[in-house]
Amino acid sequence: MGSISQHLAELDASNFKVTRSTTLRDVPLPGSPEELSHSHCTDHMVTVRWTDTNGWETPEVKPYQNLSIPPTASCLHYATECFEGMKVYRGYDGKLRLFRPDCNGQRLSNSAQRSSLPVFKFDQLKKLVAKLMQIDGPRWLPNPGTFLYIRPTMIGNGPHLGVQVPKEALLFVIAVPWPDISSKGLRLYASTPDTIRAWPGGFGYAKLGANYGPSLQAHGQAKAMGFDQILWLFGEDRQVTEAGASNFFIIWRDASGKLELVTAPLENQLILPGVTRRSVLELVSERLSTQSVGSLEPLKVVERTLTIAEIEKAAEEGRIVESFVSGTAYFITPVAMIRNVNTDISTLGPNGESAGYTTLIKSWLEHIMFGKEQHEWGYVIEDGEN
Amino acid sequence: MGSISQHLAELDASNFKVTRSTTLRDVPLPGSPEELSHSHCTDHMVTVRWTDTNGWETPEVKPYQNLSIPPTASCLHYATECFEGMKVYRGYDGKLRLFRPDCNGQRLSNSAQRSSLPVFKFDQLKKLVAKLMQIDGPRWLPNPGTFLYIRPTMIGNGPHLGVQVPKEALLFVIAVPWPDISSKGLRLYASTPDTIRAWPGGFGYAKLGANYGPSLQAHGQAKAMGFDQILWLFGEDRQVTEAGASNFFIIWRDASGKLELVTAPLENQLILPGVTRRSVLELVSERLSTQSVGSLEPLKVVERTLTIAEIEKAAEEGRIVESFVSGTAYFITPVAMIRNVNTDISTLGPNGESAGYTTLIKSWLEHIMFGKEQHEWGYVIEDGEN
Repeated sequence: MGSISQHLAELDASNFKVTRSTTLRDVPLPGSPEELSHSHCTDHMVTVRWTDTNGWETPEVKPYQNLSIPPTASCLHYATECFEGMKVYRGYDGKLRLFRPDCNGQRLSNSAQRSSLPVFKFDQLKKLVAKLMQIDGPRWLPNPGTFLYIRPTMIGNGPHLGVQVPKEALLFVIAVPWPDISSKGLRLYASTPDTIRAWPGGFGYAKLGANYGPSLQAHGQAKAMGFDQILWLFGEDRQVTEAGASNFFIIWRDASGKLELVTAPLENQLILPGVTRRSVLELVSERLSTQSVGSLEPLKVVERTLTIAEIEKAAEEGRIVESFVSGTAYFITPVAMIRNVNTDISTLGPNGESAGYTTLIKSWLEHIMFGKEQHEWGYVIEDGEN
Repeated sequence: MGSISQHLAELDASNFKVTRSTTLRDVPLPGSPEELSHSHCTDHMVTVRWTDTNGWETPEVKPYQNLSIPPTASCLHYATECFEGMKVYRGYDGKLRLFRPDCNGQRLSNSAQRSSLPVFKFDQLKKLVAKLMQIDGPRWLPNPGTFLYIRPTMIGNGPHLGVQVPKEALLFVIAVPWPDISSKGLRLYASTPDTIRAWPGGFGYAKLGANYGPSLQAHGQAKAMGFDQILWLFGEDRQVTEAGASNFFIIWRDASGKLELVTAPLENQLILPGVTRRSVLELVSERLSTQSVGSLEPLKVVERTLTIAEIEKAAEEGRIVESFVSGTAYFITPVAMIRNVNTDISTLGPNGESAGYTTLIKSWLEHIMFGKEQHEWGYVIEDGEN
């Protein structure tokens, strides 16, 4: 059932079997088709095998290569799979950093449990990533101010076609150059009642493959109509949950004129508990909830259920200040508008201009990620033997 | 978006590339560990590749082997995967038969569309299966009255890590000896409100991997408590939807004393539209709704929402006659009891005995499957060149 047994070896990233690649891959140029493919991975990958008889085996670093998977593996039939999205940043001080990697480790272990895959001590994940980056970082991420995308993934890959808890699993970590997809302003298409991403008692709070594949149909239809992402609504009152693969935030004045930063709550387990989401809430609470920053007035941080009707009303009354999504892939990206049924809602401030909150929050995070600000959230990867 | 384009090749099973295996695998003995593994596949498999630039390529029959899958493939991250469960039967007349294979073909194509995988002309699926069985049937399924389990599967397997509609896919078909798991009487554990299988606007009606992995946790817990399957309830009124990977039926007397066969409806798209389910409803409507069979009184066929409270009340009042589940893996298996929270509900008739309906329905289906009754639902596989 995914619980750690005394008899099974725990995940231990203090020891590795390393096989170096002898044929190095081309590093794609920024903006090249290879980079835009989101799929041109670095020279190596990390794999760790687990069995229900022995637990976690010794992690391996090996040349990037296709996986050999039995046609009967449960990841191909029953979606026994979960993943994380992370980035590794080359700081302006020349160091490589991860951003709050234990949050990703904890969430991956939680996701594994929800999909009946093995759990692990979550602080080991950052060490797996660090090992990969000690080897591939120098050649693939040489330039300060740039990043690679990191994808830790766990799959049930044993040859067992019966519908049952997996007896074998593979945790692997790959790294891939990723174009900067933050844009001027996203166009969101609000989901219709005939397609729903998550439900109470389901698994919307876990980063399971099962949350993504079934959402691609609506996503593809929205893309074809010129939108960037689905804004997933839920329930008869059309609650705003999350946007595509990112969390949704709105800054507005409430009816009394007070400035608020509002996002959906975690309690009903409908949305993914984003690491960037949590960081935004924590930074704004600490730095901008009781004091102004420059010309920007303080924001009250509010996690609560909000509906699309509230957003529409705020737009009509000119109370919206800014809106943005947060996530590892999209980072902090402004939202320009939302189409809900036949209504286009502008989520920009008066005159279509941003007040500057989104830019400020983004810069705070960037400073931590790229080492301009020394902060406990930045996990420095020590140089390896490379 | 999975729709058939004029410019893309359609799936065409009239032509195959065949590569014979040179090292034949052992055929497992009935009841052997290999058979009980549900994973000891036959000597060959069928694969058909699809790309969004060319459509479906020529189907291949090749030696059974692991799949080589890029670590960036969407089936490993986003659960772009769907499957079918079928069986091939060796008839008492020596012929191999499939049971209503176009129903599986249609459903697999529907499932593919729901998961943004390519659709296909559904009548081609039975030809893919037939080709595999023409080659492997003589050695792997020689004995009349026995069957192999067939698993057609489609996965998004292109190297594209971005969250998007898959650009490449693989349809594969494998065959595996499967123990007869029909039992004396299943013990079902009714799901609790904190875990649900499917929801309106979701994908419970399609055979996606995403319906299975997230259900294994509850299934595993129920198994550990000595139950065979979860009986999935939905909503505040605790509607009975389906049981594990099979459809649920109950035969009872309604309040007026009239005998009914009741199962959950398809309209709200919460349950899988089972081929066996449909066949049961059609056969009972045709053969047992207006006339008795032996000592068995006629049954009124009813597809409607039913709640666990109704079943509990019927049990208390001694109105339950029989209950069973239907599906390809479980075929027709009686249900002995349901545990709902702290209440154990016996779903056997008075004195714990079966009236014989389940046995009769099962025998009708078996006669068609194994060729004792010539019926349009039995699709005969012609002998191949083997």
